[in-house]
Amino acid sequence: MDDLIKKKLLELKDRIRVKVRFNDTDAMGIVHFKNYLVYFDDGFVSFMNKVLAPKRIEETVAEGTAFGVKKIDIIYEGSARFGDYIIVETQINDMGNSSLTFQHNLYREADNKLIAKVECVRLAMEVRSNKLVSVNEFLNKYLKLNTV
Amino acid sequence: MDDLIKKKLLELKDRIRVKVRFNDTDAMGIVHFKNYLVYFDDGFVSFMNKVLAPKRIEETVAEGTAFGVKKIDIIYEGSARFGDYIIVETQINDMGNSSLTFQHNLYREADNKLIAKVECVRLAMEVRSNKLVSVNEFLNKYLKLNTV
Amino acid sequence: MDDLIKKKLLELKDRIRVKVRFNDTDAMGIVHFKNYLVYFDDGFVSFMNKVLAPKRIEETVAEGTAFGVKKIDIIYEGSARFGDYIIVETQINDMGNSSLTFQHNLYREADNKLIAKVECVRLAMEVRSNKLVSVNEFLNKYLKLNTV
Amino acid sequence: MDDLIKKKLLELKDRIRVKVRFNDTDAMGIVHFKNYLVYFDDGFVSFMNKVLAPKRIEETVAEGTAFGVKKIDIIYEGSARFGDYIIVETQINDMGNSSLTFQHNLYREADNKLIAKVECVRLAMEVRSNKLVSVNEFLNKYLKLNTV
Repeated sequence: MDDLIKKKLLELKDRIRVKVRFNDTDAMGIVHFKNYLVYFDDGFVSFMNKVLAPKRIEETVAEGTAFGVKKIDIIYEGSARFGDYIIVETQINDMGNSSLTFQHNLYREADNKLIAKVECVRLAMEVRSNKLVSVNEFLNKYLKLNTV
Repeated sequence: MDDLIKKKLLELKDRIRVKVRFNDTDAMGIVHFKNYLVYFDDGFVSFMNKVLAPKRIEETVAEGTAFGVKKIDIIYEGSARFGDYIIVETQINDMGNSSLTFQHNLYREADNKLIAKVECVRLAMEVRSNKLVSVNEFLNKYLKLNTV
Repeated sequence: MDDLIKKKLLELKDRIRVKVRFNDTDAMGIVHFKNYLVYFDDGFVSFMNKVLAPKRIEETVAEGTAFGVKKIDIIYEGSARFGDYIIVETQINDMGNSSLTFQHNLYREADNKLIAKVECVRLAMEVRSNKLVSVNEFLNKYLKLNTV
Repeated sequence: MDDLIKKKLLELKDRIRVKVRFNDTDAMGIVHFKNYLVYFDDGFVSFMNKVLAPKRIEETVAEGTAFGVKKIDIIYEGSARFGDYIIVETQINDMGNSSLTFQHNLYREADNKLIAKVECVRLAMEVRSNKLVSVNEFLNKYLKLNTV
């Protein structure tokens, strides 16, 4: 991968807005802790779609490459309720041979309170074989299509 | 399908016990209405495993046949909370060429209160093509293995 | 309830767009049947927010009234995959003393294919006591705030 | 908290068996990464029920104290499929003033393969106020009822 592409990727930030559904809450009245994984996964999808545009992440999966989740570190700093909007900010912290380390910060939109911080390591893999794929190769293949 | 097999199938009843998880509840403090679909699907799996034993339903899926959900009618009669146990009673109400109509009754174990009644029509299908498969053929193939 | 309000409510249509998440799919590669309940519940929330605006449905819940799901009839006519957008069209089919019967039609946006038809009866209830509430009363209370 | 109780708690191991549901899988054919949080939460509930018996964790929640999730570190080492059984082994790694740090190891039962390692920090809190509660106090209150 070109150092310029790498630099640009590490500078890229994505920001999306996710609405809390009633069924995301639990009997404590707040979003159940497992659902933050759904929210930051939306952030991952949006980030990758921005990188790959006009290609979409679901197409790269259909074409045989996926980013499997290897490791998640999540710290819960607050909570959210039905009707709240969550802002998910996503960027890449680190790139390995076959790994991308994402940083996701989740904020409650109403008061801009940080409610969760996530570091998520994803591995580029062939869908059929689960063999690791080089991130370089993956990006070179798809980034011909656009400039980041 | 042999009339005797059909008769036996229609007489078969299955009964399982499912524990309500904390994340099954919502901000009302009770199980969210979508999760009853998870509970009666457990009932379907248990019923089919009883019919197919020692074969298991996941093996028939891997071998290419699945029962896709075509229609659900569900009436909610009560509610359940974290820590409750739900009893799911399952039987077949009707058999068509490619369809099985299941009746699931869900009870709260603590007081035997009926909390949901479900009628669910499932279609036997080839996994790859989504083509309908005859229930007769499906059952004849697998029921050689055991007596219901 | 004023006949005019009733007439307007029955004429109201709402239409939203929901994106299929990767975790909405199952090992068949398509959206799991339980997740259509999440999609049409989004349609319900959007419809009610349109009726109640500028009040929002989460505020009426916080103020003590909710619409509990009593009955769902759902027919599955197609399927959806990761990355698809679902259009949920919502209207009220029938109004009882304490009930609203919603019709939700779900379409795959890409080809406008109908993928599920839902009839869902909801009961207006006090959150604390689960006592039924008159839909008239509920609407009169909140519709003073706006014209439908 | 008595040092003896602390020592016994740190020595306690719990082991449960969780069945993978069809709707736990995603379009990759394997359990979606968010569902491991559901599995190890089952491990937490089972561990606490063993500690508190005959009291149950849902009773302590109803009585006003809960263990909120503060931090999760999860490493995915393998995968599971529909029909698999997961063994969740749970123990306490560390005890703070208001925190318990749980270690959960998840194994695929069929071949005893480690599929996920989890460290999860939970904070003892008053349900209403979210105020931190001393773990000592919590345990002293409930452990009068039994010997660990």
